[in-house]
Amino acid sequence: MSLPELREEVFRANLELADNGLAPLTWGNASGIDRETGLVLIKPSGVAYNLLRPEDLVALALDGKIVEGRLRPSSDAPTHLALYRAWPEIGGVVHTHSIFAVSFAQAGRPIPCLGTTHADFCPGNVPCVRALSKMEVEEDYEANTGKAIIEDYQKAGLKPLEYPGAVLSRHGPFAWGATAGAAAANALILENIARMACLSLDLNPGLGPIPEYIIQKHYRRKHGPDAYYGQKR
Amino acid sequence: MSLPELREEVFRANLELADNGLAPLTWGNASGIDRETGLVLIKPSGVAYNLLRPEDLVALALDGKIVEGRLRPSSDAPTHLALYRAWPEIGGVVHTHSIFAVSFAQAGRPIPCLGTTHADFCPGNVPCVRALSKMEVEEDYEANTGKAIIEDYQKAGLKPLEYPGAVLSRHGPFAWGATAGAAAANALILENIARMACLSLDLNPGLGPIPEYIIQKHYRRKHGPDAYYGQKR
Amino acid sequence: MSLPELREEVFRANLELADNGLAPLTWGNASGIDRETGLVLIKPSGVAYNLLRPEDLVALALDGKIVEGRLRPSSDAPTHLALYRAWPEIGGVVHTHSIFAVSFAQAGRPIPCLGTTHADFCPGNVPCVRALSKMEVEEDYEANTGKAIIEDYQKAGLKPLEYPGAVLSRHGPFAWGATAGAAAANALILENIARMACLSLDLNPGLGPIPEYIIQKHYRRKHGPDAYYGQKR
Amino acid sequence: MSLPELREEVFRANLELADNGLAPLTWGNASGIDRETGLVLIKPSGVAYNLLRPEDLVALALDGKIVEGRLRPSSDAPTHLALYRAWPEIGGVVHTHSIFAVSFAQAGRPIPCLGTTHADFCPGNVPCVRALSKMEVEEDYEANTGKAIIEDYQKAGLKPLEYPGAVLSRHGPFAWGATAGAAAANALILENIARMACLSLDLNPGLGPIPEYIIQKHYRRKHGPDAYYGQKR
Repeated sequence: MSLPELREEVFRANLELADNGLAPLTWGNASGIDRETGLVLIKPSGVAYNLLRPEDLVALALDGKIVEGRLRPSSDAPTHLALYRAWPEIGGVVHTHSIFAVSFAQAGRPIPCLGTTHADFCPGNVPCVRALSKMEVEEDYEANTGKAIIEDYQKAGLKPLEYPGAVLSRHGPFAWGATAGAAAANALILENIARMACLSLDLNPGLGPIPEYIIQKHYRRKHGPDAYYGQKR
Repeated sequence: MSLPELREEVFRANLELADNGLAPLTWGNASGIDRETGLVLIKPSGVAYNLLRPEDLVALALDGKIVEGRLRPSSDAPTHLALYRAWPEIGGVVHTHSIFAVSFAQAGRPIPCLGTTHADFCPGNVPCVRALSKMEVEEDYEANTGKAIIEDYQKAGLKPLEYPGAVLSRHGPFAWGATAGAAAANALILENIARMACLSLDLNPGLGPIPEYIIQKHYRRKHGPDAYYGQKR
Repeated sequence: MSLPELREEVFRANLELADNGLAPLTWGNASGIDRETGLVLIKPSGVAYNLLRPEDLVALALDGKIVEGRLRPSSDAPTHLALYRAWPEIGGVVHTHSIFAVSFAQAGRPIPCLGTTHADFCPGNVPCVRALSKMEVEEDYEANTGKAIIEDYQKAGLKPLEYPGAVLSRHGPFAWGATAGAAAANALILENIARMACLSLDLNPGLGPIPEYIIQKHYRRKHGPDAYYGQKR
Repeated sequence: MSLPELREEVFRANLELADNGLAPLTWGNASGIDRETGLVLIKPSGVAYNLLRPEDLVALALDGKIVEGRLRPSSDAPTHLALYRAWPEIGGVVHTHSIFAVSFAQAGRPIPCLGTTHADFCPGNVPCVRALSKMEVEEDYEANTGKAIIEDYQKAGLKPLEYPGAVLSRHGPFAWGATAGAAAANALILENIARMACLSLDLNPGLGPIPEYIIQKHYRRKHGPDAYYGQKR
């Protein structure tokens, strides 16, 4: 993918966040990386989605240096960059303040795997990443946010592309994927399964995760070498 | 109905799922059958609704053989086919991941008949079909999903066209009808009565079904020989 | 108002029900009366809103006889007519299956007056009309529905234009007003205050009605001789 | 800002309330002030948003006298004026009946600061302003509404531009800001954080506010001299 193509994809991924209602006001940002050059394109901070143009995206090096762009990058850029540095398999990152995913984040609860819609997305609960300490918040907050995600994934032995999204305690969701477009789709799925989980727990407060054999069936039906959902590539 | 007419109807039924918000992303599929030839037209797997064209629908024989089409059929096709084989009176089948119907499915609860909106749809609770065993999931999952629906209906003595939709434990809703269009409408009704039931139970957690005489009055007002709702055909 | 003008108003009132999301599918109907001739114009039964034309409205005499129209009137017409006969001050009636108002109806609860939004609409709880007996349901169901509303209002000493809407136990809302347009607006208000009440009770389950002096202030600010809300007529 | 520019801004702020779904029917109003002349432009009372034209806005002096306009000003004008008189730093005021903010108002609960979305808006709970006494309601209700807000802020030592919105017990939200546009944006944020708080409390009823160090970090990231969110002005 050329840089102009990446720019177009990251631009579209940002618009999708707004179009799908995941980012009220300017509460969301999408980025994508060109792994060959190590360049990251990300939404500028605080720009309204209806005013955003492809050329407004800011190009960053993986160390955070601005390579191109007249605008400030998203204030969450250090979180995006931390994920790109730690996880070479991802190509896009998205952050939103979508209502139901934020509600799980604020409640400090993982999103339990209560059905096949969820199992189609990831093979277990969506992690609720730990809250940051006072020191982590006051010193390099956004980078430490990325660090907490990465540490929690490492400790739990989760693969980023198998669990392509998490809610961050007291904050909200991050999602990622092989591309910026996939990350945006994952943010939309995350919001939908959060909403379904919220309502299911309302109808049956004691509800626990579905059995492992259903999770594996649905997850493997859609992902990995034996997948038979969708069209052959 | 000719095959081109069926194709048009199944195409429209698929679009209605998306337009009515019942199938976020690609989470839904509609099919229809030509009973004379036994041909089933169904949505291809994983194709976005805004890209779907009538000619993309896949034609299947009742045994699952692809008769026409360049794309893979919906991975849920074996469930659709099982229902068509068991129930000669149905002409269309729909599967969605609509939010409130999924929530009842995930909670493992039938949708109780709490009012006349529900009784206009079916004369009793919307069934919650049993969960599948490990073996049923691992061997021929989608066909066994159909089998479970059919068995539960048989055991409970329910007629498919009187109860034209059910929620599947841990999964989501299936709906059907005399045509693909009717199946899509039934999926929409199912979602609406699920939403109303969810909110009613919130307001009054101990709520039970309404009396049989109201159910029968409303159901018979709209369905069967004494119906007086709607226009004469 | 001439009959063509009434036809236009009733037609628009019906469309508003659909446009405001109060009547999923064909679940709603609006009517209006010409008090000089006693003619009632009402939506035909089961006709989709996007196909409805002004000339499809059915003209009924107050005794239910069809005066003009090729289509069957709404099956709820006898309820509308009962209200028109009992309450000469009303000029329009609306029935919907809007989600939150139906949920209060199904829960068998009046909508408590929890705030000024509600007090702007009516000076007290929105009544929950009693359920019908088996005999009332089986013999002349729709007319008896109207009878129950009228009886409950009479017993409680409620004036129809002060309480221009109610939820019917196990069923859903009816609203009315001086005109068909006012009735449609009242159905929309009813749905909004039902939604607010539902959420308020969620946040504070023991919540009771607001004090009488606030109710009176807000109600009298908007209705009656001392009203100062809106523009002078 | 010239008066024609203010008129355009206040007009747009009113439309935004409707477009963002914060003001069903005519339940909302926005105003803005020209601090040089002391003129306030405000929505006329009870005018539908789709009929509102810039020239319909009413110009008031700070003492409430109508300076220009053929229509009656919003009945809530005395509340707006009280806020403008007490708080010279604000330039716009908005009142709505948005669903979730009203629900907190009706429940008589402040909106607790449960996450970073909220902390981006204000550095603590959104105040729930006390209910008015019988005497305050019956004598000069709308002005006393303003007085209660101002008194509660004074007692709690809150700065109006740090807490640019509140819910009024039994009533609904007021929001304000440096301009009418900022006030309208604050009303939208208020509704979103109310919705998130409502759902979070559903998922975790015992939830308390997030730690002060996160609140301060997020608030200062977006507001004040050390802010680094958004673009340089």
